[in-house]
Amino acid sequence: MKNKTVDEIVLEIKDKSELMIDLAYSSLLYDNTTIAKEVYDLEDLLDTLYKNLQKKTLELVENKKLSVDDALSVLRLAEAGEQIADAAQDIADIELRDVELHPILKMSIRDSDVVFTRVEVSKNSILANKTLGKLKLASETGMNVIAMRHGNRWLYGPNKNTRIDSGDILFAKGPEDGEKHLIELASGRTREI
Amino acid sequence: MKNKTVDEIVLEIKDKSELMIDLAYSSLLYDNTTIAKEVYDLEDLLDTLYKNLQKKTLELVENKKLSVDDALSVLRLAEAGEQIADAAQDIADIELRDVELHPILKMSIRDSDVVFTRVEVSKNSILANKTLGKLKLASETGMNVIAMRHGNRWLYGPNKNTRIDSGDILFAKGPEDGEKHLIELASGRTREI
Repeated sequence: MKNKTVDEIVLEIKDKSELMIDLAYSSLLYDNTTIAKEVYDLEDLLDTLYKNLQKKTLELVENKKLSVDDALSVLRLAEAGEQIADAAQDIADIELRDVELHPILKMSIRDSDVVFTRVEVSKNSILANKTLGKLKLASETGMNVIAMRHGNRWLYGPNKNTRIDSGDILFAKGPEDGEKHLIELASGRTREI
Repeated sequence: MKNKTVDEIVLEIKDKSELMIDLAYSSLLYDNTTIAKEVYDLEDLLDTLYKNLQKKTLELVENKKLSVDDALSVLRLAEAGEQIADAAQDIADIELRDVELHPILKMSIRDSDVVFTRVEVSKNSILANKTLGKLKLASETGMNVIAMRHGNRWLYGPNKNTRIDSGDILFAKGPEDGEKHLIELASGRTREI
């Protein structure tokens, strides 16, 4: 972490805070406490990132390497990220309260222009044994994988180099047409991405 | 608004608050105060929605049509949406401070797994004279249109029935491969979606 630049940390806070929101809603929809707890772990990570960023920003200002105006933008962007992360934690809290979300509310979270989905990758699926980068899943189907389970291992916010294996469970987010496409691909019924 | 159900309002708060975050980052990236001001207008709308939701939720509890546990989930989901909306407003504030964001910070917001882009729809583009629903732009390219400008008119969070015309400026968000595809489609260089 020590070697990250200010802009890299701002980016990480932005990306992680948005991932947290998606994970939090998924945890509610699939009544999944493992995902809800990950939101808590990410909140700890974001706190650390934020403290690190404050220190670096002040040092840059002290050394006249960053103007006061630019430093204010940095701190405000990061604070907004922190605020989004807090909101995500509050959503995850609903899941951790141990009261299952009312079915109508689940439908209401799902019934958006952007839906959440969960699929299992079958042996015959063309998704198996390929990386997300090679599959270009996001641009070909509109579906973003936000979390996946590989056996007992969980992975959050996978990247281009993440490999999908048969048996993996993918938690994804995207448009309704994309969900249909992803279900067909994961089941192996469609072999064309 | 009077006739909306509690779950419909929860969904609207969720969708609008996420749209606000995207609009706020776009306003910063493209130094666009019109979009930043829309974030403020949406915040006013969300406040009204939230107050309405509180009243409806309490009435349902009073009439024993909603349990206390379910009502708590409703209020907490809506509060989280409010918090996300506040964060979006803080990001839009950075734009409205009249200090242009440092280029490195702009790059850092852009250089994410999910990028923001802005394209103009040319006369030859196959996007022209079609609705977003017909184009299935989100599932075919991974790009979500978050705002568009049609002459002097702006439209935020367009839906399936929104028609694209030549000359429209689209502000969209999605994976890098999707951005390339959208640029090709909007320019008319690619006629296949």
